[in-house]
Amino acid sequence: MPDKRRLLQTPVESFEVESGLTAEKILERMGGISFQGRNLATAHSIWQKMLGDNCIIFLGVAGALSAGGLRLALAHLISYRYVDCVVSTGANLYHDLHECRGRHHYQGSPQTDDRALQAAHIDRVYDTLMDEDEFIDNDNWIADFAAGLEARPYTSREFLYKLGGHLWRDTKRVGILTAAYRNQIPIFCPAIADSSIGMGLSQARHSTPGSGHIDVIGDIIESTNIVIRKRRTASVVLGGGTPKNFINQASVEAEFYANGISGHRYALQIVTDVPHFGGASGSTLDEARSWGKVAVDADQVTVNADVTLALPLLASALAATAPRPLEQRKIVTFGLGERVMSMDGVAFPEGRFEVEP
Amino acid sequence: MPDKRRLLQTPVESFEVESGLTAEKILERMGGISFQGRNLATAHSIWQKMLGDNCIIFLGVAGALSAGGLRLALAHLISYRYVDCVVSTGANLYHDLHECRGRHHYQGSPQTDDRALQAAHIDRVYDTLMDEDEFIDNDNWIADFAAGLEARPYTSREFLYKLGGHLWRDTKRVGILTAAYRNQIPIFCPAIADSSIGMGLSQARHSTPGSGHIDVIGDIIESTNIVIRKRRTASVVLGGGTPKNFINQASVEAEFYANGISGHRYALQIVTDVPHFGGASGSTLDEARSWGKVAVDADQVTVNADVTLALPLLASALAATAPRPLEQRKIVTFGLGERVMSMDGVAFPEGRFEVEP
Amino acid sequence: MPDKRRLLQTPVESFEVESGLTAEKILERMGGISFQGRNLATAHSIWQKMLGDNCIIFLGVAGALSAGGLRLALAHLISYRYVDCVVSTGANLYHDLHECRGRHHYQGSPQTDDRALQAAHIDRVYDTLMDEDEFIDNDNWIADFAAGLEARPYTSREFLYKLGGHLWRDTKRVGILTAAYRNQIPIFCPAIADSSIGMGLSQARHSTPGSGHIDVIGDIIESTNIVIRKRRTASVVLGGGTPKNFINQASVEAEFYANGISGHRYALQIVTDVPHFGGASGSTLDEARSWGKVAVDADQVTVNADVTLALPLLASALAATAPRPLEQRKIVTFGLGERVMSMDGVAFPEGRFEVEP
Amino acid sequence: MPDKRRLLQTPVESFEVESGLTAEKILERMGGISFQGRNLATAHSIWQKMLGDNCIIFLGVAGALSAGGLRLALAHLISYRYVDCVVSTGANLYHDLHECRGRHHYQGSPQTDDRALQAAHIDRVYDTLMDEDEFIDNDNWIADFAAGLEARPYTSREFLYKLGGHLWRDTKRVGILTAAYRNQIPIFCPAIADSSIGMGLSQARHSTPGSGHIDVIGDIIESTNIVIRKRRTASVVLGGGTPKNFINQASVEAEFYANGISGHRYALQIVTDVPHFGGASGSTLDEARSWGKVAVDADQVTVNADVTLALPLLASALAATAPRPLEQRKIVTFGLGERVMSMDGVAFPEGRFEVEP
Repeated sequence: MPDKRRLLQTPVESFEVESGLTAEKILERMGGISFQGRNLATAHSIWQKMLGDNCIIFLGVAGALSAGGLRLALAHLISYRYVDCVVSTGANLYHDLHECRGRHHYQGSPQTDDRALQAAHIDRVYDTLMDEDEFIDNDNWIADFAAGLEARPYTSREFLYKLGGHLWRDTKRVGILTAAYRNQIPIFCPAIADSSIGMGLSQARHSTPGSGHIDVIGDIIESTNIVIRKRRTASVVLGGGTPKNFINQASVEAEFYANGISGHRYALQIVTDVPHFGGASGSTLDEARSWGKVAVDADQVTVNADVTLALPLLASALAATAPRPLEQRKIVTFGLGERVMSMDGVAFPEGRFEVEP
Repeated sequence: MPDKRRLLQTPVESFEVESGLTAEKILERMGGISFQGRNLATAHSIWQKMLGDNCIIFLGVAGALSAGGLRLALAHLISYRYVDCVVSTGANLYHDLHECRGRHHYQGSPQTDDRALQAAHIDRVYDTLMDEDEFIDNDNWIADFAAGLEARPYTSREFLYKLGGHLWRDTKRVGILTAAYRNQIPIFCPAIADSSIGMGLSQARHSTPGSGHIDVIGDIIESTNIVIRKRRTASVVLGGGTPKNFINQASVEAEFYANGISGHRYALQIVTDVPHFGGASGSTLDEARSWGKVAVDADQVTVNADVTLALPLLASALAATAPRPLEQRKIVTFGLGERVMSMDGVAFPEGRFEVEP
Repeated sequence: MPDKRRLLQTPVESFEVESGLTAEKILERMGGISFQGRNLATAHSIWQKMLGDNCIIFLGVAGALSAGGLRLALAHLISYRYVDCVVSTGANLYHDLHECRGRHHYQGSPQTDDRALQAAHIDRVYDTLMDEDEFIDNDNWIADFAAGLEARPYTSREFLYKLGGHLWRDTKRVGILTAAYRNQIPIFCPAIADSSIGMGLSQARHSTPGSGHIDVIGDIIESTNIVIRKRRTASVVLGGGTPKNFINQASVEAEFYANGISGHRYALQIVTDVPHFGGASGSTLDEARSWGKVAVDADQVTVNADVTLALPLLASALAATAPRPLEQRKIVTFGLGERVMSMDGVAFPEGRFEVEP
Repeated sequence: MPDKRRLLQTPVESFEVESGLTAEKILERMGGISFQGRNLATAHSIWQKMLGDNCIIFLGVAGALSAGGLRLALAHLISYRYVDCVVSTGANLYHDLHECRGRHHYQGSPQTDDRALQAAHIDRVYDTLMDEDEFIDNDNWIADFAAGLEARPYTSREFLYKLGGHLWRDTKRVGILTAAYRNQIPIFCPAIADSSIGMGLSQARHSTPGSGHIDVIGDIIESTNIVIRKRRTASVVLGGGTPKNFINQASVEAEFYANGISGHRYALQIVTDVPHFGGASGSTLDEARSWGKVAVDADQVTVNADVTLALPLLASALAATAPRPLEQRKIVTFGLGERVMSMDGVAFPEGRFEVEP
């Protein structure tokens, strides 16, 4: 039966345990097994491949990754330019800022009595605790900064760049916001209104009329212009949420204004949500193909896993395997400090999509 | 052993199957069983209770509920005033608008070949299909409407109210946006930039400089002012996502500016996400207590279920059991057509939190 | 574009909420929506269809369904012959026996202090509690019964039939075991060793040498012979686990010994587990096709939902829509009281598969 | 506020990415983060701790771990005596035997057309494929072996020991069954009737009357006697299912016959199932405390992850950190080749629980 021979070609290899295995060796061996182990190994291969390709890599970050202890891993990915553009929830940036300002998140337990925590001014995220009074201080710090800016609308990209700069000057500590600032990597936060950063901005406006104005529609235009200008793009999504769709819609929107764009060439997501309830977070990358979010011939993989479990292994392996591709990457230079963003020294048209001549 | 007697008081009753059982009878019987069946019955009880209390009920809507066939059920909850204020993802409003404009979503299968769908200009959401060309037409319709508005920032609340009015005048069809418009129910969409409505707004700006400006930070202030002024609030969340946290943060923010506010008095969520990965969508309502999002003594329940399975039964039961509480509800009147929102005829302070004297 | 028209044929209909909707009306309307709502409606249609077909319906039951309040719903399905053969975990039968013997399960909370429960001799299953001392009494009751049987191996089918008879004579109460006994429906429990019934049997052997012997390999032969003789079969699985695979393997095994058998003609499962971790509980019915467990052209549907949420609605709808098909069903008669099982008065070959002449 | 200081003691540390990190270094750093990353690190610590304690370690194995490429990792845990007793599903042993016999599982895709697979005699487990004709050959091999044994009941422990011996002599290949045979580690398979091994046994009986008889109730007695005699026990569960409960019930049953036994002292599970639907696979280890399955003061952790993702990292780390504890382990010697099992040279009472004098 010839069909059978064609279908049964690559044997599953059994993982051989050994002392001294490094992250990249572990992932190499996981490439031979099945299920999510193999998927994570595939994610490693695809990321290496996209680093070697001349494309812009979007990184989407959702869930409580900063509070959960991954902010330096994310800062690493930014600083060494494994990624070119970040789309984040407000929470991940806020918790990053919290630690940059010298405060901590704390190890707790999901079984804690939440009434007692509330009485003690402690906020809980699953097994992680934070001091609510310190959070109020952050809010004020953000509000003060925002109130001091010229009273006009800012894209989240421009605001977060300025916030990152302020944070860097104030703390000199490495984190997501400061690494992005120092490496001129844009951060978009389309759902900034649904976060403590948004709350800080609203408090700025309360105290200083006209301040705290974020132009999230401008973010759509800028993120789309990145795709239009570069054309070759990749999407790395940790955790689903608004970042996942925002990165994808940039590709769809770009198609309206420029020919020959047909979805991200690479797509890699680490999610815990599932497809069968219809939500975007858990949707498959195959589904994304129907929309033109991901190219029909893209290299793609979904890893169904908690990011706190998958990213340490994946990023440690990349640290060993990516240096050469990173050196040879042909990277784009962004100009982020102005109202109008630029790429490789050329400004985007203001408030307009880059249209092909 | 007296402890045992105290702990073992209410027997689980076995569900007795019978022909002719109506939704409310089924839920009544499900109140005696365990696991998610009992939780849905508890959700029914809590919703009835909150209708009988003098409180403002927030409804959060995430996931592909409109595309999935629940837009009229949601419009029903709005029209009959089971809820007072809606927080939604952009997708649910966009898909609602799509059908109000006389188009459809279609039944498909998750096993479809997405390359073929892409070639045929069909977009897929799990087992549901839509015509991409019709979507482009929606985008243009939204862009045209937005481009025609006075060029200034609009909260999503004001914009969506005007959009609902335009949609009603254009189509005379019932849906989420039109029911909210006709019943003067505010809709907030904090992550509007992450949706096709946001894309339409960005296209408006492309064609008409200065248009398509949404003030999402203003949304934070308005939603908070609702809590500050009414104080007694309830949260009904379908599907997690940005609406869940946005409703919760309104309660947290209100505490900063007014005394005696300590979280929603009632909290009910129907979610499929789980707590142990740390994301907000799956977080427990106990965890929300630590933050003061939900009152420590609130009536609360989480139903771990797909909304398309749980809501038809729950809403049908409420249709039978809620009419009397609905009649006796002391409802708030909103003024939504202006830049500054009003409650019971009294405007909120512009760009400021309502501060206690 | 003709492809598009072919793919977009059946519009998703929005669920219209109304007072007085009965279970069958709700499911009828849910047939028009998407995701798990539509799947449950499809499950209803398929079950009706299989009742109208001349086939044997297997029912698999896993999870804590009896403790959770579904034992009478399951007994209803057995008594009215919605199903012809049951495959269950030991736990579901044990908890059924517990209530038949006049004891209860109790409503509790998942947040209870388990150390306190342990001290008070209370066992917990999520939000459900039981009295451990009553359980010990059940174990003794089972052990006494088993010790009194002739000392020889019993298939779980024969043992459970006898146990059901003893329970009926002792209690005259309706439940899974007693309904199956009174309606001559076989129950298989392939993993009986992994349950409190198994523990009771082991205690019988401790006290009475030679007793407590269950021949689970005999169960494989008997369940397969049912398929071989009837050929046309259906599989209804609630919760996955050993019952799911045991029902499926009967179909695969039957193929070895008889021509023209190629998997269950109908397959319906209500599960919460997911496919992407490779476990059998969450595996898709498509995957089952590759094995020949389910016919390649079978009517099949997976509902991703908690059984305590889905079954009350589904069984209540069937109670209204199934009576006529039930009346006209051409049912098989089983002889279950002897070592050798019979179908329609003809005994199976002892310890052998029914081989085609 | 002193409470706050007490609750906020251990800061979450951010994972620092570095090239050259080995498994044990990665887990060490993951111990400082949150959610499932921290849980896996805790699993590593607990396993090390139990190796240093004088206890018997049960290993439960469910899901398609052997087919998925983990059989050599499991064989490693057995050979180096990280565990003392295995409880497995039949599938994991069958797939292990398949590869020991020189055949393979193959890498495939979950999107394959299952009708085509069925036509080509290929069976699918998510993304993994096997040759059905080779499976039939395995079944015959098992049947032949079983038919050649003396016609009497065998506990699954005795049968699998003999099967492992036969497999070793036949193939000289390392795997779960052969490693357990060579290291005198008992394997219990309480749900053997729900597997292809069970099918092979049923085929043996078909051909050779009186053969293929497995005494699964005897397995309960033997596994319980291990707990009674050793008293200090640990439970490592990969994937839930029947092994999880079988290991736990041994502890509960032991309490009936011996004083001072109160649950496993260590409990570690890697599962993907969740607690809120009431099934045993997803149940928490806290819940297990209420039953006395796990000691109220046990060291315990649940890792919510796919085993194919978690075990390679965990086992590789143990390979580096466990050698010294492994050397110093005071291990028990089992006698497995006879009808009556022995521990440290002393036979268990036949068909009876070891009762304290």
